[in-house]
Amino acid sequence: MSLFVQKFGGTSVASLGHIENVARKILTARAEGHGVVVVVSAMGLETDRLDDLAREVGISDPAVNREVDVLLSTGEQVTTALLSMTLINMGCPARSYTGGQVRILTDSAHTKARILNIDVSRLRSDIDTGCVAVVAGFQGVDENNNITTLGRGGSDTTAVALASILEADECQIYTDVEGVFTTDPRVVEGAKCLSRVTFEEMLELASLGSKVLHTRAVEFASKYQIPMRVLSSFKDVEGTLITSEDENMEQPIISGIAFTRDEAKLTVLGVNDVPGIAWRILGPISEANIEVDMIVQNVAADMSTDFTFTVRRDDYDQAMKILQAVAEDIEAREVSGDNRIAKLSMVGVGMRSHAGVASRMFEVLGNESINIQMISTSEIKISVVIQEKYLELAVRTLHSAFELEK
Amino acid sequence: MSLFVQKFGGTSVASLGHIENVARKILTARAEGHGVVVVVSAMGLETDRLDDLAREVGISDPAVNREVDVLLSTGEQVTTALLSMTLINMGCPARSYTGGQVRILTDSAHTKARILNIDVSRLRSDIDTGCVAVVAGFQGVDENNNITTLGRGGSDTTAVALASILEADECQIYTDVEGVFTTDPRVVEGAKCLSRVTFEEMLELASLGSKVLHTRAVEFASKYQIPMRVLSSFKDVEGTLITSEDENMEQPIISGIAFTRDEAKLTVLGVNDVPGIAWRILGPISEANIEVDMIVQNVAADMSTDFTFTVRRDDYDQAMKILQAVAEDIEAREVSGDNRIAKLSMVGVGMRSHAGVASRMFEVLGNESINIQMISTSEIKISVVIQEKYLELAVRTLHSAFELEK
Repeated sequence: MSLFVQKFGGTSVASLGHIENVARKILTARAEGHGVVVVVSAMGLETDRLDDLAREVGISDPAVNREVDVLLSTGEQVTTALLSMTLINMGCPARSYTGGQVRILTDSAHTKARILNIDVSRLRSDIDTGCVAVVAGFQGVDENNNITTLGRGGSDTTAVALASILEADECQIYTDVEGVFTTDPRVVEGAKCLSRVTFEEMLELASLGSKVLHTRAVEFASKYQIPMRVLSSFKDVEGTLITSEDENMEQPIISGIAFTRDEAKLTVLGVNDVPGIAWRILGPISEANIEVDMIVQNVAADMSTDFTFTVRRDDYDQAMKILQAVAEDIEAREVSGDNRIAKLSMVGVGMRSHAGVASRMFEVLGNESINIQMISTSEIKISVVIQEKYLELAVRTLHSAFELEK
Repeated sequence: MSLFVQKFGGTSVASLGHIENVARKILTARAEGHGVVVVVSAMGLETDRLDDLAREVGISDPAVNREVDVLLSTGEQVTTALLSMTLINMGCPARSYTGGQVRILTDSAHTKARILNIDVSRLRSDIDTGCVAVVAGFQGVDENNNITTLGRGGSDTTAVALASILEADECQIYTDVEGVFTTDPRVVEGAKCLSRVTFEEMLELASLGSKVLHTRAVEFASKYQIPMRVLSSFKDVEGTLITSEDENMEQPIISGIAFTRDEAKLTVLGVNDVPGIAWRILGPISEANIEVDMIVQNVAADMSTDFTFTVRRDDYDQAMKILQAVAEDIEAREVSGDNRIAKLSMVGVGMRSHAGVASRMFEVLGNESINIQMISTSEIKISVVIQEKYLELAVRTLHSAFELEK
């Protein structure tokens, strides 16, 4: 008998019909002899409804954050009750838990709390007596019993944290997709569902816009070595297993191609190449809460260099305004920018031992006359920035050149 | 400075606009120097929505009751968060509490739990620091921290219980009416809002269908001598104060006329007048969970008597079926019934010292040729059953004959 933590997201519990479907998934795992602890999100539209209510009342004053958490946390609580009722009506003992009832102890950073500790004594006793514990994801309580929420990707984090402390055999994340794909199937018809990826690869894919899992949950699972599985609530598929790299694991050179469209790039030209200059450029950007992604600085020629970085497209106008003031301040020649770019990344642990990946990638793009505007690499990733209009062509061509459909 | 517990029901918090209105009421009380602890119900339509969800999943198995409570309790939690946010945005410190956070300790009778104890330490500290505590009505937790709900009238009960333990000066129940009326203003144009009634009168009025307050909350307030006030969320009125009878209180003979339409009456004719016969008739009725209201048995003649009682009109058919079997069993002559009757009651503590009320009442009804089918009296109440079609006429005539509009 294995112990699974099964997490069902908002689209998987969107209606009572969906919840029945989820209940049947749980019954199947139990019929196969496995122990199950369940984590649920709020029903799809419920999150939006509560979010809208909060915004209508006004959330600009951080003093209301405690109450926003009280409001939002009801969404998951509703799902735990409905799923438990459904299981009981199907003859399966079940019991719901709020974050506070479990007790999932967090810090007091309302709307973005971090889990500090979980008391699993009640859940263990449920496992022992064959009762399905249905835990509200995304929420906890601080040491004064104030309700907190975990921010984006919170329910996945709850599931992984529970799996870790319960020493579960797998943390199964049920979603509306079949698993992690080599790339977005909407762009490349031949995109293939991966049977395994490593935590490292998943982290790169997640941070690069593959929306299946939130980076935070993957980091957590990686840190505590919890095998995760992404699988579909709607189809009976094996999904994708996410684990540590091991010797027996077949290592494809490239696991997948991720991309994001909503990028913009800004360049400060003719910057004096003196120590501290990068900070003088990026400091004001970061103070404005604009997230910077890729940063490239070329080798200086004549004590002068060009400094380029990318931001989310939404932040482009504000970043440009800030940079123009900065440029004047540091006596740079000029600021240029482009908000019609896209980032494409190839990810794979096999890349470590295959130096040729980058050159092959550049060759393939060159053959299609796609100009590479920026390059950035990590041990298991190569990212390039290209003109947005070439994105689909680039993804399809690389997917096929690296034989990912096989 | 006084301390008020203010309770706002579902219609008073039906929308964000309503909640803003409630916040202004609270700010007014504070501006006048009073301390305020607030109890709220779920937003009007929210209760229905959650109820519908529960029914759709299926609530016939009592094993789901624990989960029904988890589901329903989210309704009040949402309101506490929204009202606290609104107060904070208006510059008033506020903090929401679930029943579990306060800690309102109840027994474990899910969906109809009873309050055992309330820890008011956090609320006291809020009162001391000038923070408005906004407590979710209708809910608590049992000793194992399972969420419970208090059943019908639960939020009123929460408010009265809090007022009692906090030794508040008044428990103010805000509703969508201006107070307690001498009778239903929809039936008698001249119906008057009472400035004061006693607990006893309010109990009789509430149990007789005056829907302003639930019997349970009034009993509680009466037991612990908590002055209650029923007043309007929408109009600036004094409302009705409900207190113990005191010497200075002006004692009108009659305070009000209550009535219910949804009654039915059943008579077993020709019953052997032997000990235990009432139980043999009513036992099967009560086993079928049919509530019996008035019971009248005439003096026996020839060892044979007629036994009459009233039930809710919805239960009439079932009760008739049961009675027919019973009648055969106890060899009664026959069973007759009428489901087009109404009950009308005159209530007033002044009645105690005025023997003439009943005869005056019968005279007034007789003058209008309204036949009285059953009579039942208590110390401060006279109830009669009449044909339903005469109900409005009877209420109007009595209201005027006893000068209640003055």
